[in-house]
Amino acid sequence: MRVMEVREAGAPLVLAEREISEPGPGEVRIEVAACGICHSDAFVKYAGYPGLELPRVPGHEVAGTIDAVGEGVSVWKIGDRVGVGWHGGHCFQCQACRRGHFINCANAKITGISHDGGYGEYMISPWEAVARLPDDIDFVNAGPLLCAGVTTYNSLRNSGARPGDTVAIQGIGGLGHLAVQYAHKMGFRTVALSRGADKEALARELGASAYIDTEAQRSGKALAALGGADLILATAPNAAAISALPAGLKPRGKLMLVAAPQGKLEVSAVRLLSGKQIHGWSSGTAVDSEDTLEFSVLADVRPRIETFPLEQANEAFELMMTNKARFRAVLTIAERS
Amino acid sequence: MRVMEVREAGAPLVLAEREISEPGPGEVRIEVAACGICHSDAFVKYAGYPGLELPRVPGHEVAGTIDAVGEGVSVWKIGDRVGVGWHGGHCFQCQACRRGHFINCANAKITGISHDGGYGEYMISPWEAVARLPDDIDFVNAGPLLCAGVTTYNSLRNSGARPGDTVAIQGIGGLGHLAVQYAHKMGFRTVALSRGADKEALARELGASAYIDTEAQRSGKALAALGGADLILATAPNAAAISALPAGLKPRGKLMLVAAPQGKLEVSAVRLLSGKQIHGWSSGTAVDSEDTLEFSVLADVRPRIETFPLEQANEAFELMMTNKARFRAVLTIAERS
Amino acid sequence: MRVMEVREAGAPLVLAEREISEPGPGEVRIEVAACGICHSDAFVKYAGYPGLELPRVPGHEVAGTIDAVGEGVSVWKIGDRVGVGWHGGHCFQCQACRRGHFINCANAKITGISHDGGYGEYMISPWEAVARLPDDIDFVNAGPLLCAGVTTYNSLRNSGARPGDTVAIQGIGGLGHLAVQYAHKMGFRTVALSRGADKEALARELGASAYIDTEAQRSGKALAALGGADLILATAPNAAAISALPAGLKPRGKLMLVAAPQGKLEVSAVRLLSGKQIHGWSSGTAVDSEDTLEFSVLADVRPRIETFPLEQANEAFELMMTNKARFRAVLTIAERS
Amino acid sequence: MRVMEVREAGAPLVLAEREISEPGPGEVRIEVAACGICHSDAFVKYAGYPGLELPRVPGHEVAGTIDAVGEGVSVWKIGDRVGVGWHGGHCFQCQACRRGHFINCANAKITGISHDGGYGEYMISPWEAVARLPDDIDFVNAGPLLCAGVTTYNSLRNSGARPGDTVAIQGIGGLGHLAVQYAHKMGFRTVALSRGADKEALARELGASAYIDTEAQRSGKALAALGGADLILATAPNAAAISALPAGLKPRGKLMLVAAPQGKLEVSAVRLLSGKQIHGWSSGTAVDSEDTLEFSVLADVRPRIETFPLEQANEAFELMMTNKARFRAVLTIAERS
Repeated sequence: MRVMEVREAGAPLVLAEREISEPGPGEVRIEVAACGICHSDAFVKYAGYPGLELPRVPGHEVAGTIDAVGEGVSVWKIGDRVGVGWHGGHCFQCQACRRGHFINCANAKITGISHDGGYGEYMISPWEAVARLPDDIDFVNAGPLLCAGVTTYNSLRNSGARPGDTVAIQGIGGLGHLAVQYAHKMGFRTVALSRGADKEALARELGASAYIDTEAQRSGKALAALGGADLILATAPNAAAISALPAGLKPRGKLMLVAAPQGKLEVSAVRLLSGKQIHGWSSGTAVDSEDTLEFSVLADVRPRIETFPLEQANEAFELMMTNKARFRAVLTIAERS
Repeated sequence: MRVMEVREAGAPLVLAEREISEPGPGEVRIEVAACGICHSDAFVKYAGYPGLELPRVPGHEVAGTIDAVGEGVSVWKIGDRVGVGWHGGHCFQCQACRRGHFINCANAKITGISHDGGYGEYMISPWEAVARLPDDIDFVNAGPLLCAGVTTYNSLRNSGARPGDTVAIQGIGGLGHLAVQYAHKMGFRTVALSRGADKEALARELGASAYIDTEAQRSGKALAALGGADLILATAPNAAAISALPAGLKPRGKLMLVAAPQGKLEVSAVRLLSGKQIHGWSSGTAVDSEDTLEFSVLADVRPRIETFPLEQANEAFELMMTNKARFRAVLTIAERS
Repeated sequence: MRVMEVREAGAPLVLAEREISEPGPGEVRIEVAACGICHSDAFVKYAGYPGLELPRVPGHEVAGTIDAVGEGVSVWKIGDRVGVGWHGGHCFQCQACRRGHFINCANAKITGISHDGGYGEYMISPWEAVARLPDDIDFVNAGPLLCAGVTTYNSLRNSGARPGDTVAIQGIGGLGHLAVQYAHKMGFRTVALSRGADKEALARELGASAYIDTEAQRSGKALAALGGADLILATAPNAAAISALPAGLKPRGKLMLVAAPQGKLEVSAVRLLSGKQIHGWSSGTAVDSEDTLEFSVLADVRPRIETFPLEQANEAFELMMTNKARFRAVLTIAERS
Repeated sequence: MRVMEVREAGAPLVLAEREISEPGPGEVRIEVAACGICHSDAFVKYAGYPGLELPRVPGHEVAGTIDAVGEGVSVWKIGDRVGVGWHGGHCFQCQACRRGHFINCANAKITGISHDGGYGEYMISPWEAVARLPDDIDFVNAGPLLCAGVTTYNSLRNSGARPGDTVAIQGIGGLGHLAVQYAHKMGFRTVALSRGADKEALARELGASAYIDTEAQRSGKALAALGGADLILATAPNAAAISALPAGLKPRGKLMLVAAPQGKLEVSAVRLLSGKQIHGWSSGTAVDSEDTLEFSVLADVRPRIETFPLEQANEAFELMMTNKARFRAVLTIAERS
């Protein structure tokens, strides 16, 4: 089978031919049809993740078909249309797992980091990291929903915001362009924040009721002028930009973080005392992904994607990292996707 | 001014000419443009509510314009487009009010029961029972949203159900036909339950993904066959029908009651042990009504109504009580509505 | 090894000698030191549970020591002090399990029903049903905390009641005498309800601030006279008695059911409309049991027990079923407990 | 009547003789018996609060007796034992008030800042800012509970932490020494953090199960070594110290802020992604104070205080500001307290 693998930190990915291996106990093998490219794939390319070993096949927005099932797995059978996201498996026996909090597993695996991911014709995954795809969604659209999708859908639905509330989405990129759609379809009054006046038309098309150009306006002040937000979802990893957001919350409002900027947030405690909250959130498990996909079908939410054949992974990766993709680059395996 | 008033229990309402009075301290006077008719108006017609004194002008789905403001009221000014619902005022000084739980006020007033309501050209209301109407909604549409609307919107948004959850609406009448729309626009997978196959087309048109004909199927079983409901909102006041609903809940699911049938619900405790809940809910306050109206504009939800001139209140009332109205009868004052 | 087993529905348990078997993959073997007797053991004695096959060793309040560990189990090692409760294992692969809701597992096992329980010198259990015992608790005290304890502790801590709230415990039996202690130690204003004036002293000793004799007073009315309850925990399985409780709730109050009476509850929907809730609850998982035990040590909560040697299981069972035990009968294995 | 008033920013308070005035509509007059001194009184002394006008009588931990009732007030009558805290009244008509969120009132008054407070023989207060004192509490103990008490009790009970959870209290001063007691009596596993080994004995006496000396240990690391906190309540206004706390939270844990340090918190977003939250909180309303006092009686929580006659307000203030008071200085009016 052919894969695109990282062999050396920072070097281009290399097209390699490998043996197809068999799934072990508790694992399944997936015939990959499509795999989205995520900014977090840079962790692999630059070998910057604890425990990561090279060579490694990146990719955690994987969609395809089960074609082999390991021992002890009863959920999946050959032919099932499935996907795999960032959460790549859990141990079931640590304290968090015993509480059912798999996302906080002390031994959590990450797809494409702990083991090989979806930049290839096949991949092997722990059964518990696998999500079922609804019939009504294509492989190429499913890919990005398994990471960018579940991260935004799952944070929004667990935010405590109620229909009719004002929900602001900071950033309209890979995550943000989905978040705006989800927020709109969840009945929120959706405000989009991004740089430049030219994004407004897109934001409104995706479902925003209002748009704030953060190059022209201070985000906190502009949100306050709209009455303040009950919820702000920060999707663009810019510490200074995020630090400015609490000023735009209503009393009792919440800032949710799904983006993790490098620098530290600088937060005024005084400003939070009116009952405001800051809440970090990290993607979801395989069932959260299933819920995401089902909702996307129900509410007709789709990522905007550009597709590339597997062999052009380097070009596609470059487009993503320079924020030139509109909005998610997806690798495809010819004749499967 | 002309009003339609109940003079004797059970007798037809009488068209009467009264003096226009002035609002007292903490009150406002509303020039009524439209007033919806609710099943609860039967409490007035049949003089069946504790503390009710006749003659009384019914009507708690009132929409109109402020035309006089009493002492100490700063929120409202002449010309404001406003409405009044079931919750007719609170005392601010009882324990529930001091906690901000106005809906549970120990001395709560009810519009059209504690004092005269909206079946007339003018009505006087405590300021705190008044809700602002958004510009984008007509008086005739606003009326039913102030009782049937807020009851269903407010229960749904406070139910704890999350977007993508399966939400069943039992009954497609005055409340139910709004609940189906709200549930759909809140991103729920919406199932409608009603009697007869002929309601299915309507239910789907309002936004239901599935329909259960309760004459042909047992509701609990049919819901379970769809995977079970995370939430069921019971809007039709039939004790036997509601008693059958918990069987259709998922574990951890919730049955919310906004309808109050005369008889007792019969509930199996064993069936609830999987974490199921039954939760009673009663309309909302004036700000809840404002939220309802804003959401209705945002998500384009409207009641289906038939309008009647004020003088035909008896005919309109009869249509409502015999469930022949499609779906809400609204009295109008010529040239205002 | 010696066990007390049910061979025929309704007949006395029989002392039997069996081979000690080895734990399979995912299982552990426990050297039993003590096992509490629960009313639910009657399901076994009278062969009244779906899927139950005789002969069966009852007992789901098991405390002892790990003495053999099956393949694939990393949490437990020989010598660990552990316990097992009602929840006897889950499948990990059903939809509820994938969501981390193990208590709602579609294939849940029940200790002493699905497989042999703790009325014997050894028992074998799935690893995930096993809870670690804190050092500071005896085996004989741990037993009842693994069922009566976790059921009341877990329902109370998840009820949403806040410290200082008025919490009523209906019934002072095996569950209730623990619930009163827990409620008190959680900072609730605790009201106990039971039959007869002679229970008052005990109730106060356990931590109740007030006592209602339900033979002398109507429970709902008496609670209302105290200002109403924020939470009522129904622990005595009497449908008529439970049906009377919602009248004693404050608006927004909650009735929690951990007892499952045979008959149906009769509930007035009108009475619930002030925001009241009824919420069923069923025990907890092994980690919930660990939390229960830790809390019991922290807050110095212990069951009141009478101990009996294993061979006297029939006598002990009889005492429990006739409500003559004060308050929990516990079988002990000589020299281990 | 005699009062201690601030006449000039930074200058000592001056003992002044004033006329006793009458309460206006919606107001009551309180014969003050005791008034606690709070760090926030420095806002008055140094004239550092928006809208503050001098001369002003500080004091928002006021306990005494109603001795005159203004027009329209039905809750209070002469002779009632009452208190007043930081929250000094609300407008009822702003959007937050209409939602029942009085604490977020857009026109909120602050006792001792918006109008004269309790450093005097009488004070006048809006009726809605007044809390009833339980019979079983002295005026001198009630004072500090109306600010330091309600702030910590109310944040803890609304934190979402469940009995048995690990709750860390940062700081053992005026707020912290109450927070440790409350947390203990709410059934939390309580960890106290403070500077110096000599505070450990006190912390344990107040109810802490563990103590972390932040001069000897890094707070985040030390908490993590104990298994991590489900909740940390930051009561000491030190930005650097608070910034170090999220590292001590469990995944899904919450840092609550009741202290507002001058500088900015520096927070790593990456560290929050495991579901951690930061939540600001500000004291409570008069009913929250009533709940605080009732709980303090129920659970036997009392502040540790030193009392001073009114005339020694300057000395007492100085002790508080230099953190030499153990733990709350309370001014008393001879023969009343």
